Parts: sequence; structure tokens; C-alpha cells
Amino acid sequence: MTVPTGSLYLVPNTLDFGTPGEVPDLQDVLPLAVIRHAARLTHWVAENAKTTRAFLKRVDAVVPLAQPLQALSIIELPRPRKGASNAAPGDLRALLAPAQTGHDIGLISEAGLPAVADPGAALVQAAHALGVTVVALPGPSSLLLALAASGLNGQSFAFVGYLPVEAQERGVRIRELEALSRRLNQTQLMIETPYRNAALLGALLAHLNPATRLSVSSGLTLAGGFTRTDTVAAWRAGPHQLAADVPAVFSLLAG
Amino acid sequence: MTVPTGSLYLVPNTLDFGTPGEVPDLQDVLPLAVIRHAARLTHWVAENAKTTRAFLKRVDAVVPLAQPLQALSIIELPRPRKGASNAAPGDLRALLAPAQTGHDIGLISEAGLPAVADPGAALVQAAHALGVTVVALPGPSSLLLALAASGLNGQSFAFVGYLPVEAQERGVRIRELEALSRRLNQTQLMIETPYRNAALLGALLAHLNPATRLSVSSGLTLAGGFTRTDTVAAWRAGPHQLAADVPAVFSLLAG
Repeated sequence: MTVPTGSLYLVPNTLDFGTPGEVPDLQDVLPLAVIRHAARLTHWVAENAKTTRAFLKRVDAVVPLAQPLQALSIIELPRPRKGASNAAPGDLRALLAPAQTGHDIGLISEAGLPAVADPGAALVQAAHALGVTVVALPGPSSLLLALAASGLNGQSFAFVGYLPVEAQERGVRIRELEALSRRLNQTQLMIETPYRNAALLGALLAHLNPATRLSVSSGLTLAGGFTRTDTVAAWRAGPHQLAADVPAVFSLLAG
Repeated sequence: MTVPTGSLYLVPNTLDFGTPGEVPDLQDVLPLAVIRHAARLTHWVAENAKTTRAFLKRVDAVVPLAQPLQALSIIELPRPRKGASNAAPGDLRALLAPAQTGHDIGLISEAGLPAVADPGAALVQAAHALGVTVVALPGPSSLLLALAASGLNGQSFAFVGYLPVEAQERGVRIRELEALSRRLNQTQLMIETPYRNAALLGALLAHLNPATRLSVSSGLTLAGGFTRTDTVAAWRAGPHQLAADVPAVFSLLAG
């Protein structure tokens, strides 16, 4: 008898991780079908088990969980060994073992879509290698919401992750991204650890050309969230502030 | 007396535009709060008025519209004049006039998030220039779902739009994207008009290196949707088919 293989579901999380203020309703940002999917999954691989349990409590308030929280299997993604960029392939195959015995598995990160600007891609890769079906469920992505709200070029864009922290290296990288943006007419998106948001904004304003357009989206989908797009010259001319405890996305298009 | 300014809401659409088969439930892909938002908007700017009316009928079935469909203002985005890449700024300002008299405006495209791989960015840009608040509402993005499901690099990626149609130019562009992907360790995402999906897949398999990983996502969020990621060598070795009436996203990471 063949046991049907389970699938790997990529479950989006909300965008309020670590932010102050009231936790928004799950139905503000997730489709009901996704909440239903999450409620029936019994095997999870998570960036963080604690935040996953908090997420599942919010799910349970909308659609009762198929099994009590305590009965669910929630395993954290192994961190890469020192010097390696990914976990060992054997570790990842072990995480997918429930699929081989017919259980669907949920992959979830602390915020937004797993495997995008977040750990998890190596597990998805291992799933494809094992022939496990991968299904990404729709949910909020701060990168795409920021890009849409920016009014910058949405026909050609790149997400480049984090910039170097060291000031001189960062300046070089900012000018490099501006040159690339000009050459390809490509919006360049980046993120930063929230407590460094203000420093990154300062560095961007120091190094970019006055005519380059810079967009900052902060706290998207949350109360008080905003997107501001302006030329660097206009940003420099007025006051600007960025919360140190709310995630932000920065995007630029060379002008 | 100051009239409060309305905002520009970017309203996500479903991903089933133009596809065969049953229309999925709106709550499969859109958060309830987004459906509620859409139900109360009375002024719309749309890529296509007819598909917007169809969308609003689906909204009405979940949350009754604040005003009858016939009473809503739905204006199509002006097409760029010949030789211009965007509509004239004056035309766009006129579309935003309702915001100046306190009305919120919805911007919607035929599928997915407006202003991403879709028209609308120029209107968003005009809104920022006029000081109209821009709010992107969360919904499905085929690009991000494809990237997450691909297992390719989600920490660095670029969306490059459409490839040239002419065979030789297309081959040159494919090799250029593969070289860029190798140099930056950057996933390259592209799309094609559905009836050309099979031709694009053929061209990618003809021009990419055997070790490069190629991912194809077709019909995401729809019944029968799938994501396959494999090396070019493995794609070449077996049969492969792509529907000519379902949108697909192609992504590659040089190997």
C-alpha cells in the first residue's frame, strides 16, 4: 500500500512581529482559507517555535485548531553551522520526514512569507529534491507592499537584503546600488534591523544624488504605518523620523 | 472648513484573471478586512473597468457594497500616449481629484497587486506628489509566491519583467540574466504572456547551463497550480508541459 505523500505548505505570518501596540486581527492580513489551512496542520517547521505558538493561538481564535496546541509538532529550522550558509542537507531531510508518511507540513517564519528575505529556502529546496509538493499560501509581504506603495518602478526591481553596517563600506554599496538602478532603471529594495533604520536613512540621504527618489515604508499593515516617497533633495530639506522598533523597507530609483 | 483628504488604496485582485475553470472564492486569497475595504470604496481607478465590476460583484457576495455597482465611479487608467512610457501627469492628477474632496480612491489591476508588474505606478507617484496618502492592502502576488515556492535565493532576487520575443535577442538576454545571477547570487524572475509560456520554457532550456536551477510556477492559488524546481539538466531529461491559458512565473538561479 502506498502512503500518499504530504505537501510542504508555506504559511504566511502577519507583519506585526516585535512591534509595539495592539496585535491586529488575523483577518486583517490573512485570507480565511489560509487561516483554515493553518488550523488543520499538525506538523510545523518554524523560524521560531514560540512565535509560531503565538500565531497558532491567533489562528485558533478564528478557526479552532484540529488538534490542541500542545499536541502539535513544532520544530525549529536548524541554524547553519558556523561558516556554512545553510543547514546540512541531512538535517533538512529529517524535517521533511513527516511528509513521507502522509502528513502535510507547515513552514512559517516570524513575519511575512517564509523563504523570502527570511530563512526557509533551503528547506523548500530539499522538498523539491525529495519530490515533496510545495504550496505557497498567499499573505502579506512587506517588500511587495512597500514597492507597490512607493510609486517607483514596479516593472523592474531587485531586493538586495541588508547593506553593510560599516560606514565606509555602506557608502560604497549605496552608490553602487544607485548606479545599478540608473543603468537598469531598476528599483532597489533593502531592509535593516529596526533599531538601525534611522542610521540607514541618514546614510542614504548622505550618499544618494539629490534627484534620486527614495521611498520609506514603515509598519505596513499596522496602525500608524506609512509610505513616504520623495526626492533625496526633498527628504533632506525637511524633518524625518523613523521608529526604532517597527520594521521598514527602503527603496530607491536613481534620478 | 478643511475637507479631509481621501487616500489612495491599492487593492489586490485575485490571480485567476483569464484562466479557465471555476472562479475561486474571494476568501481563498484575500483577507476579510481587504474585502471590507473594497466594499466601502465608491471611487475606483482600474486597469480594466469590466474586470473591476466582476471583482466588485465577488466582493458584494461576501460584504455588501456600500453603494450599488451602477452608482460607483470606475475610471480606467489612461494608456500612455504613443512613444511615452506613462500617461501625461495632468491626466493622472485628474484621476486623483476625488481625493481632494475627501473621497478614498481604490486602484486595482486585473490580477494581483496594482503597480507591481502592472500599470499604476505612475498614478501612485502622482499621489505622492500631491500629498495624497497611499496605502497598499495585502493580497496575493504571483511573483512572491513563485519565489517562496521555488526554493531559490529569497535573500537576493530581481524581477526583470518580459524577455524579448525575437529568438536571438531572447537568447542573448537569457545568457545575460544567467551571468548576472551567477555574479550576484541573485534569483532572476520573469513572466510571459500565457500563450508564449511553452516557447519561453523552451528557450530557457536551450540557453541556460545544465547546472542552473530553473523554477516554473503556474496557476498559483488556483486548482491545478504547481511549482517545479529542477536543474536545467533534469528539465531537459523529462517531459514538461505548460498550459497556454494560465499565467506562469519563471525564475532561475545560476549553478
